Amino acid sequence: MMKDGSLNELLLLLLSKKGNYVSGEEISEKLGVSRTAVWKQVNHLRKLGYEIDSVPRVGYCLKKSPDLLLPEEIIQSSRLEFLARKIYYYPSIGSTNDEAKKLAQNGAPHGTLVIAEEQTGGKGRLGRRWVSPPREGIWLSIILRPSLEPYEAPRITMTCAVAAAKAIRKVAGIDCWIKWPNDLLVEGKKVAGILTEMSADMDSINFVVTGIGVNVNNTDFPAEIKETATSLKLVSGKNVGRLKILTEFLSQFEVVYRYLEDGEFGKVLEEWRQLSCNLGRRVRIIGRNYELEGLALDVDDDGALLVKTDGGTVERVLSGDVSLRE
Amino acid sequence: MMKDGSLNELLLLLLSKKGNYVSGEEISEKLGVSRTAVWKQVNHLRKLGYEIDSVPRVGYCLKKSPDLLLPEEIIQSSRLEFLARKIYYYPSIGSTNDEAKKLAQNGAPHGTLVIAEEQTGGKGRLGRRWVSPPREGIWLSIILRPSLEPYEAPRITMTCAVAAAKAIRKVAGIDCWIKWPNDLLVEGKKVAGILTEMSADMDSINFVVTGIGVNVNNTDFPAEIKETATSLKLVSGKNVGRLKILTEFLSQFEVVYRYLEDGEFGKVLEEWRQLSCNLGRRVRIIGRNYELEGLALDVDDDGALLVKTDGGTVERVLSGDVSLRE
Repeated sequence: MMKDGSLNELLLLLLSKKGNYVSGEEISEKLGVSRTAVWKQVNHLRKLGYEIDSVPRVGYCLKKSPDLLLPEEIIQSSRLEFLARKIYYYPSIGSTNDEAKKLAQNGAPHGTLVIAEEQTGGKGRLGRRWVSPPREGIWLSIILRPSLEPYEAPRITMTCAVAAAKAIRKVAGIDCWIKWPNDLLVEGKKVAGILTEMSADMDSINFVVTGIGVNVNNTDFPAEIKETATSLKLVSGKNVGRLKILTEFLSQFEVVYRYLEDGEFGKVLEEWRQLSCNLGRRVRIIGRNYELEGLALDVDDDGALLVKTDGGTVERVLSGDVSLRE
Repeated sequence: MMKDGSLNELLLLLLSKKGNYVSGEEISEKLGVSRTAVWKQVNHLRKLGYEIDSVPRVGYCLKKSPDLLLPEEIIQSSRLEFLARKIYYYPSIGSTNDEAKKLAQNGAPHGTLVIAEEQTGGKGRLGRRWVSPPREGIWLSIILRPSLEPYEAPRITMTCAVAAAKAIRKVAGIDCWIKWPNDLLVEGKKVAGILTEMSADMDSINFVVTGIGVNVNNTDFPAEIKETATSLKLVSGKNVGRLKILTEFLSQFEVVYRYLEDGEFGKVLEEWRQLSCNLGRRVRIIGRNYELEGLALDVDDDGALLVKTDGGTVERVLSGDVSLRE
């Protein structure tokens, strides 16, 4: 979180009156600081990229935001319930999932968000790297304390995938598909990935951290993923508002997560099936100790992929790398 | 760990020559400290309960140890491989499992031990309390980094239970039984409990912390568990060496854990079956959302209990409270 409490308050105030002038006097009264302090903070916001007009004897007016993922922006532009209670924001961090796990271990509540503008050590599945350059994408982790048993944890990944695919479709108007178990594809390339981690005993989950990385405005990728990765900007040909994608995702997540908590996971599963690019197609799966090829029939409540092999048996696959065959 | 490095060294030296005199000169040379410093440290050890004889111009002789679970004692009295590499020792701590999880999160290696003489917030399954009075039992957690998938984690609990039951049988000469999923019983009462916790993503386990509490020399229990708990001392009628139980347990654990890692979990399972008090008996299981009564047939590779109900179906039970029916 930003350290300067009254900077947060100033931003919230200007955001709530965006496009209108607020007098320096009103601001200094509401924030309980001097008008010189207000002026200093306005300049601080300008350095962050906020366009703030100031007219002598009239006041300040927020004209344009720099599309940062600041907590105040999220609070102002969405109506969230449990996800908005606690937000940790970092201009740069190693990994939001690692930070979220530490916070959760120390008691951070259900729904806590950890958001970074940049990850220097972003992680994907199986310890792979997730490239997370500053201000180009959404690098986010959510701390959850669901009443699930450990084997049900993949449901969280599926819930997150549904919310993200719906948000991308709605905001960017792009056909986005879920690839089992944890990727989102646009035009056959990876646009987002989900990494769900948990702390559990054998009876119940202590906490889950579900992290998502969305390539929003990336224009370039490292050589090793150039062929397989894309961004919303590369597909749509224009900049996409990160804040819009983020707040839509969070709103969608709250809706779908409620189904899951209310024992209506079937509804999530149904949406997942509609958004999946695997089902009904030939897939090849490479797991740790096996390889498998066959027809992807369905997913079950535990998030396992049901694959009909050429031998005619139906295998229940819990993890592995999937490629689509035509 | 003890802060005073040379105190550790002194103890190791005296332990290695237990019953024999070592001259103050030899000690001060080996430890690189003055003879006055040696004398001070001898007195420090005496305060911890060590009986150390000192004869002018002859030296010091360790006559008797106070049965503390100090790392030096463990190292001296066992031949451990991976479990002895790093030991954290606390005279008193909240919960060894919580401490171990923090250490693991910060990178503590496979095999790290966390040992306390007292737990002020000892935990059992389902958030229950585990009474852990000072110096009366063994309160211990092991950090493991197994190459298992999350659903296989219950194997660790089973491995730990087998090692503990064997150690108790061998050292205390008492018939000790494993009660699914995580308790050890003597004469029908609980003498030890295991709490296995894990950090995992959907593909693999990051780390497991398996904690065990063994009631060794307890003579009294709080009212709410008086009828159901016992200790090795209450059963055998005499004090039992905690250090002996502990080091035997650790040695057994290394043997059984190796089976598990080498893909020979069947061997562990076979020992588990021999030591189980559930199999072949009528059990009643109370889970979170169900109750079940029937004949306990077997356990499977995932640690699930297979119960044949009166209706004739075989249920696969992953968690729950079990009571034995006659």
